[in-house]
Amino acid sequence: MTERRAEGLTPTRAVTVTRVSAAGTSRAGDLVAAEEPLDIRLHGRSFAVIMRTPGADRALAAGFLLSERVIRGPDDIGAVEHCRHPDQVRAHHVVDVFLAGDAARRVPDLLDQRRNVIANSSCGVCGRATIEELAADVAPIPVEGTVALSVVQHLPDRLRSTQAAFDETGGLHGAALFTAAGDLIASAEDVGRHNAVDKIFGALLLGEAEGAGCALMVSGRVSFEIVQKAWIARVPIVAAVSAPTSLAIELAHEAGISLLGFVRGSGMNVYTHTARFAGV
Amino acid sequence: MTERRAEGLTPTRAVTVTRVSAAGTSRAGDLVAAEEPLDIRLHGRSFAVIMRTPGADRALAAGFLLSERVIRGPDDIGAVEHCRHPDQVRAHHVVDVFLAGDAARRVPDLLDQRRNVIANSSCGVCGRATIEELAADVAPIPVEGTVALSVVQHLPDRLRSTQAAFDETGGLHGAALFTAAGDLIASAEDVGRHNAVDKIFGALLLGEAEGAGCALMVSGRVSFEIVQKAWIARVPIVAAVSAPTSLAIELAHEAGISLLGFVRGSGMNVYTHTARFAGV
Repeated sequence: MTERRAEGLTPTRAVTVTRVSAAGTSRAGDLVAAEEPLDIRLHGRSFAVIMRTPGADRALAAGFLLSERVIRGPDDIGAVEHCRHPDQVRAHHVVDVFLAGDAARRVPDLLDQRRNVIANSSCGVCGRATIEELAADVAPIPVEGTVALSVVQHLPDRLRSTQAAFDETGGLHGAALFTAAGDLIASAEDVGRHNAVDKIFGALLLGEAEGAGCALMVSGRVSFEIVQKAWIARVPIVAAVSAPTSLAIELAHEAGISLLGFVRGSGMNVYTHTARFAGV
Repeated sequence: MTERRAEGLTPTRAVTVTRVSAAGTSRAGDLVAAEEPLDIRLHGRSFAVIMRTPGADRALAAGFLLSERVIRGPDDIGAVEHCRHPDQVRAHHVVDVFLAGDAARRVPDLLDQRRNVIANSSCGVCGRATIEELAADVAPIPVEGTVALSVVQHLPDRLRSTQAAFDETGGLHGAALFTAAGDLIASAEDVGRHNAVDKIFGALLLGEAEGAGCALMVSGRVSFEIVQKAWIARVPIVAAVSAPTSLAIELAHEAGISLLGFVRGSGMNVYTHTARFAGV
């Protein structure tokens, strides 16, 4: 679990991790990239909730509104401020934006257009709300049975062997789903990491692939969204070549998912639910 | 420019690139990851338009609807088919989904909730429509003046030196904006690549950073979205440590943006508007 006590506008969170290496297994402290929702409000009402790393939140809100074409330049901005809510955690996750001139006059229409997006977003105002909402709808995966670490250690090479288009371009994310014995069920490549995972679970839904998915391996980092997809598809292990975010770790903890990062050679970090692995 | 003639359900696109290395400059063919919009339709009406790499589109549509909680399992799916439009290019970019049972009865409500999202999406049914819509609203950046290649060659090291949180976690994207002389204007880190770029342009909007932005350097790959943000902010050079997507290249061509990939050591690939660099 990440340390929520340390939460604030810093970009990293402290976690405790189980490190596995050829030399054995040990518990250690580590830092991960913070991922938490930011509620961008226009004239007091939610316009968008986006996942971000805390820090430069006011700049992020302004830049986001520029990219979304809500504002065209500095003259369209009246004020951009963190919420003054007395609860500091809550205030950290809300930026209030007030527009000026013509841009201000467009706000009611903009908010009406976005209303349904916000109402149906799975994001809450802090990561906790996001996780609780999901947990209310999807039962945790029981942590039972054991999986051999040697199976996990082979997954990066097996994923790599499925990445034909990455070999040609260096520009695609890869994901692959394996059984508890390490047999490949399905794999996919995409410019979007989340798309590669959706392609795998979609193939299972369509009967294009078959098998009991035990471990999802992804080529890059693991964000909240990837763990969410694995939870919905009831896959108990998520493994990545690179780092997880803070919210990915928190969600994996709640979901009963064993989250593994930096799976390289015989080494890896186990962030949650070590009980699923023999000898860890 | 990518070769639209070769367009189809393959994951790569052929491009012509100018390779710069210590040995000199040469033109060569290369492959990049295809990035194109997919229109996911429910009962004949647009539910979502997402950027993806073509291939496994039916599985992607099914998996996306699972992640969005529109469907819960195979029983909710009636049919998932590529559109039968006689125009092959158009048909490749549309998947029609028909739901079954209770899920089918929820479709009208789901579509009403999403209606405004689609109406305001900047994505068209093929990449061409997306680019034309943007081009109608934002003037191309004139390709004038020259920038020294030596300035660009130093940007990866200068970006890296700003990435304090990446050093601690290995889990963050970095972006930095530089003047034509290579001086740092602003930098940002985030779990989301697009957020890091929004933070930079937002800081300029808020007056927290100042300077004429000439080159945006990003730590990873370059998708359509990053080039779009640079175009809106009128930054003439986008450089990346890794690969661009096909749609990023096409958009950069239209925008008058010089797009550089694999900027490492003294080498780089120039995908568009080489005229901006002396001696290339």
